[in-house]
Amino acid sequence: DVSRDLDESMLQDFMDAVDNKKIEGFLRDLTKVPHMATSAGDEATVEYMMQHWNDQESGLDQAWRQNYVVYLSFPDPKKPNKVTVVAPNTTVLHTAREREKSYGPDQDDPEVVQPYAAYSPAGTPQGKLVYANQGKPSDYMLLNKTLDLRGTIAICRYGGAGRAEKAINAAPYGVVGVLVYSDPLDINDGLMSDSNETYPHSWYMPPSGVERGSFNTDYGDLLTPYLAAKESTYRIPVENITGIPPIPIQPIGFEDAYVLISDVKLEVFNFAKLKNSSNVMGIIRGSVEPDRYVIYGNHRDSWVHGAIDPSSGTSVMLEVTRVLGRLLKQGRWRPRRSIIFGSWGAEEFGLIGSTEYTEQYYTKLSERTVAYINVDIAVFANATLRASGMPSVQNLIFTAAKQVKAPGLESTSVYDNWLRYSNRTSPAYGTVPRVGYLTGAGSDYAAFVHYLGITAMDFSYTYDRTKTKARIYPAYHTAYDTFDYASRYIDPAIVFLKSAVDLFRSAATQLDQIIKSSDLANEIPLKVRRINDQLMLMDRAFLDPQAFPEKYGFRHVIWASSSSGNATFPGFADAFARASSSGLEGDWFRAHHQISILSQAINGAAHMLMDGFQ
Amino acid sequence: DVSRDLDESMLQDFMDAVDNKKIEGFLRDLTKVPHMATSAGDEATVEYMMQHWNDQESGLDQAWRQNYVVYLSFPDPKKPNKVTVVAPNTTVLHTAREREKSYGPDQDDPEVVQPYAAYSPAGTPQGKLVYANQGKPSDYMLLNKTLDLRGTIAICRYGGAGRAEKAINAAPYGVVGVLVYSDPLDINDGLMSDSNETYPHSWYMPPSGVERGSFNTDYGDLLTPYLAAKESTYRIPVENITGIPPIPIQPIGFEDAYVLISDVKLEVFNFAKLKNSSNVMGIIRGSVEPDRYVIYGNHRDSWVHGAIDPSSGTSVMLEVTRVLGRLLKQGRWRPRRSIIFGSWGAEEFGLIGSTEYTEQYYTKLSERTVAYINVDIAVFANATLRASGMPSVQNLIFTAAKQVKAPGLESTSVYDNWLRYSNRTSPAYGTVPRVGYLTGAGSDYAAFVHYLGITAMDFSYTYDRTKTKARIYPAYHTAYDTFDYASRYIDPAIVFLKSAVDLFRSAATQLDQIIKSSDLANEIPLKVRRINDQLMLMDRAFLDPQAFPEKYGFRHVIWASSSSGNATFPGFADAFARASSSGLEGDWFRAHHQISILSQAINGAAHMLMDGFQ
Ligand SMILES: [Ca+2]
Ligand SMILES: [Ca+2]
Ligand SMILES: [Zn+2]
Ligand SMILES: [Zn+2]
Ligand SMILES: [Zn+2]
Ligand SMILES: [Zn+2]
Repeated sequence: DVSRDLDESMLQDFMDAVDNKKIEGFLRDLTKVPHMATSAGDEATVEYMMQHWNDQESGLDQAWRQNYVVYLSFPDPKKPNKVTVVAPNTTVLHTAREREKSYGPDQDDPEVVQPYAAYSPAGTPQGKLVYANQGKPSDYMLLNKTLDLRGTIAICRYGGAGRAEKAINAAPYGVVGVLVYSDPLDINDGLMSDSNETYPHSWYMPPSGVERGSFNTDYGDLLTPYLAAKESTYRIPVENITGIPPIPIQPIGFEDAYVLISDVKLEVFNFAKLKNSSNVMGIIRGSVEPDRYVIYGNHRDSWVHGAIDPSSGTSVMLEVTRVLGRLLKQGRWRPRRSIIFGSWGAEEFGLIGSTEYTEQYYTKLSERTVAYINVDIAVFANATLRASGMPSVQNLIFTAAKQVKAPGLESTSVYDNWLRYSNRTSPAYGTVPRVGYLTGAGSDYAAFVHYLGITAMDFSYTYDRTKTKARIYPAYHTAYDTFDYASRYIDPAIVFLKSAVDLFRSAATQLDQIIKSSDLANEIPLKVRRINDQLMLMDRAFLDPQAFPEKYGFRHVIWASSSSGNATFPGFADAFARASSSGLEGDWFRAHHQISILSQAINGAAHMLMDGFQ
Repeated sequence: DVSRDLDESMLQDFMDAVDNKKIEGFLRDLTKVPHMATSAGDEATVEYMMQHWNDQESGLDQAWRQNYVVYLSFPDPKKPNKVTVVAPNTTVLHTAREREKSYGPDQDDPEVVQPYAAYSPAGTPQGKLVYANQGKPSDYMLLNKTLDLRGTIAICRYGGAGRAEKAINAAPYGVVGVLVYSDPLDINDGLMSDSNETYPHSWYMPPSGVERGSFNTDYGDLLTPYLAAKESTYRIPVENITGIPPIPIQPIGFEDAYVLISDVKLEVFNFAKLKNSSNVMGIIRGSVEPDRYVIYGNHRDSWVHGAIDPSSGTSVMLEVTRVLGRLLKQGRWRPRRSIIFGSWGAEEFGLIGSTEYTEQYYTKLSERTVAYINVDIAVFANATLRASGMPSVQNLIFTAAKQVKAPGLESTSVYDNWLRYSNRTSPAYGTVPRVGYLTGAGSDYAAFVHYLGITAMDFSYTYDRTKTKARIYPAYHTAYDTFDYASRYIDPAIVFLKSAVDLFRSAATQLDQIIKSSDLANEIPLKVRRINDQLMLMDRAFLDPQAFPEKYGFRHVIWASSSSGNATFPGFADAFARASSSGLEGDWFRAHHQISILSQAINGAAHMLMDGFQ
């Protein structure tokens, strides 16, 4: 019965069944040990997901593991990376920490990976230290005016440029190594002391905290562009990989960054390896349109314990599937369309699990997927909703936010609370909350949006920006992102996580129909399908495999990322910026070419909504 | 009422209404004057199509003209191309004909274009003549072992290599110009005399006959790759065009080819120009699934009068639309799905009209098109059906051929007659007629098959191969392909053209359903749609924009053309052939890469037919 799913009382039933204690239990279980991609801890989470999704009383119709063989980069546990200050006579004056300082058993776990830059080459450069701000092209250009950068080690703060870019931008000037750290002004609102200011006294990053990360530009497995990384798949030669650091780079804590003086010696012993990485997949089959998919994805792997990133999102997903699974097993409910759940592996190394999945099922997914919902970090902080998505789902997000009460504010909706924190005035709708763009490759929506052209959205709870300037929550990618941290500083009452579960449910209910039944209640099923297909396939019209030959995996002419920082029409914006600055005729031709690509795509999309061809 | 269209009596009604006299009239009208793309004669055929498709009593629901601005190449009427034999003292010993010999008013028409090689550069090379067989790479390689080819003019016969290739292959050896002619052994079964053997005494090519043609490799407008050639579209610089002759080339008749001796002077004055070229489009809207299209296409432009190529096909199309249009206007019939009719412009210059159309409506066409039916030349000769198509439509072609009586053989079906001329033994079906492949870019199906991955078919009537070895019908692309020629030697009683009309009707009727109603009669409409969509979209799974970076517009990993001459798996076949011959490790890697591309595509296609993802 189609109408059951739209029933408001079903939605209320669902919300009543969501259980904070269950969510807390999931979060505690998932974060017991570090679960970096392909580690033993990661394997334990694979089995944990499988067990829940195969549960007889609250599982899905089907769950399975999908394995890929992917190219990852690790530090050598037997030969840790080192950063030292050496005197001219080779005396070591200072040695940077190899592990973050321990404040409890979580940091003592031997499985905590040493802070490192994944995909940095190994090497032991030594040189005078120079401060290169954020490692942007303009930063090195400016430095180069007054200094000979050849043979130097650059130190940069995080932010402003992508991780790999800090090294890629440096190499042409002869820089031989790069250090990167989180500046207390960027991440800690300036606070620096762990005796009373930082974790474990607050959510701020301790002085020894280090943001780990993947230092690559292209997303997906680096050896198998455009092909799913199965065991037998052709792999490009390692030397053909693009977008990774050409010189050694290593992240350090601000405690060490502040005492470094020349000369600095950097010893990086990272090595790369082909590893088995798993997605865990699950499905609830649709009753009326089983060949239409709403996909809900979250990555499972963390850098260390990953309580916030990503286990907050994984707990939300597990509670969603538990409550839906129970309704399903009791025979009380089945969606109109299929819902596919994806617990992605190796996201931290470059969105690998989700990307390989889209490569493997390219045609099937692009022909049949109604929308992709991503939840990575479910709660960055505890003030307001933050949502990003394509324009086609803006109203859907608003409706979902109106249906759910704001955590801790009984009489206010998530929508009304959101409106207070972030809004814009739209000519058509007046004042509405500000919905972000999905232009980059910041989480697993990237392959869905940029490679397949599928309508997508991503949501989370975030800061009160009047209270902190932190670039991101301060424990991000450190050994302090633990259950202890999450339950003391982020969401002690599990009300934000619960609210995220409710929001997913409301959004998914709407996507199960796309068009409100009232609009088409009297239409024949084929006409409903036709109009739904028009909307579903709209964004595909914006794909052009020729649009960005130099940007791996980007085909969507509206939402691709822009080097010149323009949120829309990136191909044209970048070409225009370049032509304006160079004035070269060839660059103006390229800008004209981008206008033609864009206008053909826009016309193509418009034609998807029209019956005729004229 | 859906079932009406499947009704056998409707099909009989249709066939009874098809009128040989009408077809003859269309052919006569269309071939009154030469109608080379964008000429005044072409414009007259545009208006002719528009008038018929807009007819109140037998027109379509809607018809319109769609204009593109395309890059074409012509000889200079004021400075005709010349081929002369010169003595060392510059005395002209022989001058090749500039026009073909006249046997009647058709050849006298001042609008008959001089024989030329479209897209040959202008130039006036002179040199010793060398005979280069078919101008294949191996032909020049062999010659080069015994002769210094620098500064020579090569003469080749048609066949064995693409038109442009004969010059592209020659240039690296220092050849400065190329002549090409139709060898009487290849085209005339050796006959050469126009006093009693060739046209006007038979269908054979007169000694002065010259096959014109487009000497390019990439299909579509050469200045607007992947973008529809609208007025404002970005155009690549002319010097970036690939796949055209780097040295002057000119076609001549065998009469001249046989008397040429060294030295030869070649004077080519071709010039290129942006011209307005029109497709004429028409539609019959579907009653149940208006957003599913069966597309029927035929090019309209010829090199001269083009009675066989393409007006035989255009007459068939006009009779199809006349009879369907009458049923439609009388309210007696409407298809379940929409039928789109395309009368393509500038096919002879490289499939331009159809390609630009697919570029403009890329997404809409690929999401919604059930199949493309191409009829270019409808009757090459008068013996048997010749059909090509993807495997998914083989049975459909067989059914159509069984429903239509063989022309001139009252008690035999087209199918049974076909079986006598060309068959193969299939393990599953026993002896069946041989259906050809659509691997190349020989007619307007190319962009549909290779660029959009749409299931396609092409049919025509052709020779008795035991009676002639002619490479193609001998008047092909000459000034002798006239109404007189067609009505005396190809289809005097217009029975083959009538039969082609009936075949189209039968094929289109089946495509209006794809799945026989009996199989799914009791299923709900959404399930029928789902299964139909699976079949419709199957071939799209075989598209990979990365598969053939060096082959313009080819993305279909099964049906792309192969340089090594293998009909299927062209990417792998070519890479394998190359690796086997070079033995280089890098070439073996490329072959492995092609296997991965292929296996991902095949698995992707298989998954289109499966409900699950495992
Ligand atoms: Ca891959
Ligand atoms: Ca074009
Ligand atoms: Zn994450
Ligand atoms: Zn992360
Ligand atoms: Zn033709
Ligand atoms: Zn032709």
